[in-house]
Formats: sequence, structure tokens, C-alpha cells
Amino acid sequence: MSRLVALLTDYGHKDTYVAQVKAVLLHMCESVEFLDLTHEVPPQDIRAGAYLLSTAVPYLPEGTLVIAVVDPGVGTERRAVAVQARKCTYFAPDNGLLTLALREDPPEAAVVLDNPRFHLPAVSATFHGRDIFAPTCAHYANGFPLAMLGTPIDPASLQTLEGIEPILTPDTIRTRPLHTDHFGNVIFNLREEVFLRWRQPEHLVEVRLGERTLPLVQTFGDVPWGEPLAYFGSNRYLEVAINGGSARHQLNLHPDTELLILQKKILHTIPIA
Amino acid sequence: MSRLVALLTDYGHKDTYVAQVKAVLLHMCESVEFLDLTHEVPPQDIRAGAYLLSTAVPYLPEGTLVIAVVDPGVGTERRAVAVQARKCTYFAPDNGLLTLALREDPPEAAVVLDNPRFHLPAVSATFHGRDIFAPTCAHYANGFPLAMLGTPIDPASLQTLEGIEPILTPDTIRTRPLHTDHFGNVIFNLREEVFLRWRQPEHLVEVRLGERTLPLVQTFGDVPWGEPLAYFGSNRYLEVAINGGSARHQLNLHPDTELLILQKKILHTIPIA
Amino acid sequence: MSRLVALLTDYGHKDTYVAQVKAVLLHMCESVEFLDLTHEVPPQDIRAGAYLLSTAVPYLPEGTLVIAVVDPGVGTERRAVAVQARKCTYFAPDNGLLTLALREDPPEAAVVLDNPRFHLPAVSATFHGRDIFAPTCAHYANGFPLAMLGTPIDPASLQTLEGIEPILTPDTIRTRPLHTDHFGNVIFNLREEVFLRWRQPEHLVEVRLGERTLPLVQTFGDVPWGEPLAYFGSNRYLEVAINGGSARHQLNLHPDTELLILQKKILHTIPIA
Repeated sequence: MSRLVALLTDYGHKDTYVAQVKAVLLHMCESVEFLDLTHEVPPQDIRAGAYLLSTAVPYLPEGTLVIAVVDPGVGTERRAVAVQARKCTYFAPDNGLLTLALREDPPEAAVVLDNPRFHLPAVSATFHGRDIFAPTCAHYANGFPLAMLGTPIDPASLQTLEGIEPILTPDTIRTRPLHTDHFGNVIFNLREEVFLRWRQPEHLVEVRLGERTLPLVQTFGDVPWGEPLAYFGSNRYLEVAINGGSARHQLNLHPDTELLILQKKILHTIPIA
Repeated sequence: MSRLVALLTDYGHKDTYVAQVKAVLLHMCESVEFLDLTHEVPPQDIRAGAYLLSTAVPYLPEGTLVIAVVDPGVGTERRAVAVQARKCTYFAPDNGLLTLALREDPPEAAVVLDNPRFHLPAVSATFHGRDIFAPTCAHYANGFPLAMLGTPIDPASLQTLEGIEPILTPDTIRTRPLHTDHFGNVIFNLREEVFLRWRQPEHLVEVRLGERTLPLVQTFGDVPWGEPLAYFGSNRYLEVAINGGSARHQLNLHPDTELLILQKKILHTIPIA
Repeated sequence: MSRLVALLTDYGHKDTYVAQVKAVLLHMCESVEFLDLTHEVPPQDIRAGAYLLSTAVPYLPEGTLVIAVVDPGVGTERRAVAVQARKCTYFAPDNGLLTLALREDPPEAAVVLDNPRFHLPAVSATFHGRDIFAPTCAHYANGFPLAMLGTPIDPASLQTLEGIEPILTPDTIRTRPLHTDHFGNVIFNLREEVFLRWRQPEHLVEVRLGERTLPLVQTFGDVPWGEPLAYFGSNRYLEVAINGGSARHQLNLHPDTELLILQKKILHTIPIA
């Protein structure tokens, strides 16, 4: 059976960069199949890349090989790594891009891809996706064990992203955008499970965007056409949207916009007798 | 042999939405192959989606499974359906998206996808492509018969789009845009066969866009560079283009622009003797 | 084993044009696999298309079938051709699009695709990708020899692009843009090997963009953030970029921008005794 290779990059679709990566794999492997996760991660936006990768991981078949490249540090000292996790094996720059994926899919072993025998003969300064990650992944798909691809490292030594988690106090959550999707919905770094653990019974929750209060609802149809809403989206992160519009543009959200979530105890007022 | 699944959505390429749909199928099916029809249907534009789907249907191999999702009503009462037609089987929201495809490929049986056994365990409010259409399609690809996927319905009860046909009188056709393509050519809702049936011998045809008359020709080279033209395109619909330019922008066409086509009897003037 | 078909077009992703081409092949071939090189060649830009195709060719597996369509002359007298080269076989309009690919992969035989038996029954005036190139390629994949597909021609008679090479004197190179990539880096028509042959020992090289001098370096990290640089990119062409920015926009480069490269002998000044 053919091996599934999933790809996530910021290479876009204007060029043949993605095709060159795939061609190296097709050239080296008997049988390989591709799943494009996305190639439109905003250029060099590791944070959005980490989020996007993590949204796909829960649905990937067991044994999928993942090549993930958002790599502002290409050609510098940053390490290139392969990480074998419970479900998938990842080939990526060690710059935090795997932070959220490895939370879904815990790492079991990792190596630095420092064995040039598994790279293309000439490695360019700017395109390690083609010259290092693709051929190493191809060798792994062909049966070479992880330990042969480079120097073993402790998975705990892998870079993780700073500020990827929301800031919680018993009464408040401060959360910031991870990504804006195709529909203009803005995804914040608050997962539903974190919210549910934080939430206290008999408390009222309020979602504030600047001076504005947003209704926290289940889905678009719960607010009138043209109105903003906050909800936990299909990837179980908090999202802000406009029913029938673009939250990104209409609410003027940017990467530093902070959403404030408050909870306060409901006061049972006793009617005067 | 592997089963072909063709996909048409308005999910775009920025996110992993398309990949999540495919991953569910790859996870559940032994062998499946994908054909991306397009994922850039303008967000929630059922009319453009219906047109685009219909352009691909005549070329799809027999037995293709089609997942089509342009779904402004997701999470509301609209039905999710599977429709077995003469050539392909379609998985889509019942909102008119299949109107034009089923004219090319007549339906033979249909069900409402109301059997949760064939959905993902947790169905989100906003992403039925992944949670309902993909797993149902996967089960069907694996051999489950249509009738098991949900409650049978009469294909005649499927929603159809209003105003999808041009308005004809013996002397005039009023036609409106369905879609603007990558080159800025605007496709109108007039099929060549409808035009040819309408047209009378010894009549002169005129195509009017507001005050302007457009030449009705075979192809771009029939008008000078920079000039507008009307022609029946490769999908056999009437198109308006600019030779070497963008009709959409240069003629300022919008979804409500009406094209008026007239025919009048040719007068044989008798030269004065 | 399945046959690999690589595709390069200017069809974009908004429509089903690419899918229609693939559907014809899937319909006609037992087993075929696709590699999308890119479908976002700027509309009708043969020069950029030629460059992009040539960047993928070195990485394609032996025996790949390539369908390349950037075709402003569709429906006119321009020939449709198939070219069997040392590594791949190409199906394309004869308008210079193959110029750079065939420099990497020398042609051995060519035919004009004038045998209608291998076309779709109805050939449109505007979509030869679907109606001529796809079915001819499918027949070839199915084992029909090149010579049966049409009238043999001398590969030397194929159109080549004018002005695709830089202008060299012993002291200067004048080079112009071929393409702007997804990151805003501008690729010029100067290959590294041409530059290295031109360069003389003990000479100083200067890269001039108008009044400005650009540092010729190895990679982005060699200049400060926000600064411009010239370097030979991963495809071994000269590129101009801004570290962390878009050269296309920030340096206002356009298709006619000329880069001037000079070399002059280093003067060994003798210190006054």
C-alpha cells in the first residue's frame, strides 16, 4: 500500500516549490500519496502554521508522514528535525511549528537531520523543504529507521512557541488571534476544553472586544444577519465571526487584538416582601 | 481499483478544511483518490457553485462520488442528502447546489443523511463537510447501499434554484451572470442549446449590454485586441469577455447585470429600379 | 504502476478547468497520477510559464508526462505539439513555452497534434487543454507511439522565446525579470552557470538597480532585516529580495526593470613608501 505524506507550508501556489518537494518524493519512493494540508500559511507565520497543523492532526490516518515547513530561519543555525510521535512522524524546522501538533500527538523520539547522506547532493541555502525534508522523509518512507537519519535528541528539547496559550486568572481569560480563516472568521488561542475547565457554576460569562460585548453562542444562526458572534468552532477553538460577513474586516481585528472573557457570580436578588 | 471522489466547496485554500474532509475519507477507506473540482466557489454562492459543478460533471468518469458543499444554511433545518444519479453519486446540502448537475446527470434515488451511525461521533454545528458528508461518502464507497445511509426521499422533492434559467420570449432573451472565471470572463445563464432552439431562420441577432452592442462571435481572435465579445464558451454557456482583458472589471459587470438578446426578421429591401 | 502526469497552466483555481483536464485523463486511462506544478502562471505570460516549468523539470521522475498550457494563441494558427525529450514527454502549444524546459531536457522527437482521432469528439475554440492535450496525452499514456499522434516535425523547428537570455559583454550583464514568486522575490533571467562562466578572476562585481547598488550574497541572513539583496536562489537563477519583505513592492520592480551587473579589475594600489 502507498504511504501517505501530508504537507503544510507557506510556499503558496504561484510557484513550483510544492511540486519540487513532491517530485523529490515521487522520484525516490515506489509509492507515495500526498495530502495537501495547506500551502497558504501566511509567509513565515509560525504561530498560524502551528495552529493550522494542529487542526488537521486529529483526522490524519495512523502512520501519516508530515512535512511541515514555515521556516523564517532557513539557512541559519536553527535545527532541522524529524519527530516520531504516537500517530504520525513529522519533518520540520525546529522553530516551534510543531508545538500544537505534538500536544495532540505526543512525541516519542526525535533526531536532528544532520546526516547529509539523506539530503539531496546539493543543499541550497533557502529551500530545505526540497533539499533536506523531502529526501529524508523519502528515505524514512522507504524503511530507514529514524535513528539513522541523524543525531538523536530529547523530544523535550524541541522548541516551543512562546505566548501560544491564553492568560487565565480565576475571573478572566485574555486570548489573542492565531489565524484568520478563508471566511474572515478569526480564531483565538482558547480551546474549548480550557474554557470548560475554567468556567465555574452559577457564574455569568461575558466576552468583551474593546468596548463591545459579543454574544457567546453555538452557531451563526443564533444571531441576526450582519451581527458579530463568539463561538467554539469546528476545531474547538474560540472564534469570532460576523453572520454573513467578515469579522477580520468589519471588526478590524489584528494579530494583537485581545479578547477579554470574564465570569462573575450570579447574584440572586431577593424580591422585597 | 481505487474509488474516485470529486470535491467542490467554498472552503478556499488558506485553511485545512479541505484536508480534514479528505483525511476522514483516507482514514475510513482502503483506497480512494481525489479530484478537486474547485474550492474557490465564492463563499456561500450556491448559484456559482451549481454552475461550476455542472461544468465538470460531463467529464467525470462513471461511478465518481461527488462531495459538494456550499452551505450557508449549515446548522439550520436544511437537509443533508445523497443523490444517486445515472453516472455519479452526490453528497451535498439540499439547497439547490445540485440543480444544474442533475440536469446533466438525472437522479435515480435520494436519501436524507439522517442516520447518525454514518456520521462522525461528534458533529459540529458548522462543518458538515467533514462530520457528515465525508464519513457518509466513505461508508458508501465501502459498499453500504444508499438506502442504509438515511431516509429515502423522492428526488423530485430536492430543492432547485430559483431564477437559474434565462427569460425567453419569441423575440428576446434576458440572461444574467452565473460566475466570473479566473480570466475575468463572465458566464451568463444561457446555454447554447437553449439559444439555438430559440433562434429563428432569416433573423438577425443582437446582443445588448446596456447601451452597448456586443459582437456575437466564435472566439477571441474574431475581435481586435482590447475589444469586448460575446461567444459560447468551452462549457457551452454564453460568455462575455474582453480580448486580452477582463470583462468583469472593464465592463463593470455585477451579479445583477442583464444581457438582452434580440432577434428581428431581416428585411429584404428591394433596390429601386 | 500508474503513470505520472505533471500539469502547468494559467487556469487558476476559481474554475473547474484544471479538473476537466484531469477528468478526461482519469476517464481514458486505467491508472494515472497527477502532479500540479502550478496553475497560477500569470494569465498568458509565456515567459513566466517557461521559467516555472524549467524549475520543476530537474526534479521530475524519468518518464513523466507533462501537459503545459499557457496559450494566448488558442484557436489561431499556432501548432499544438508533443515533444519527446530525454526524460519527459511534453504536450503544449508551440509558442515558446517549452524553451527553457527543453534546455534542461533535450528533445529527441516531436509531432504536431493534428490527428483528430486522438482529440475529444468536439474541440472547442478556447480550451485545447481539455479537448486536445489531455486526450492525446491519455492515448500516449495508454501506449500509442508518438508518431501516431500527428505529423512528425523537426524539434529544431519548435518556437523559442525571444529575449529570454540576458545580454552579456565582457564587462557587463543586462538581465530582466522572468517571474515574481509568492514571497515577492523577483527572479531574473540570469542563471548561475552563465554568471560563473562570465566572471573573471581578480575582478570586482557590482549589481546595480537604477542608482542603487545591491549586495550580492549567499542568503537572506547575510543582510540586515528590511534590506535588499541579490543572490542565486534555489533554482540557480539570480533573485532580488528584501530580507523579511517584498522586493516586488518595496523596490517597485516591473517586467521591464533592468538589472546591470558590472565587473572591473581590482586595482592593487601600492602604498606610498
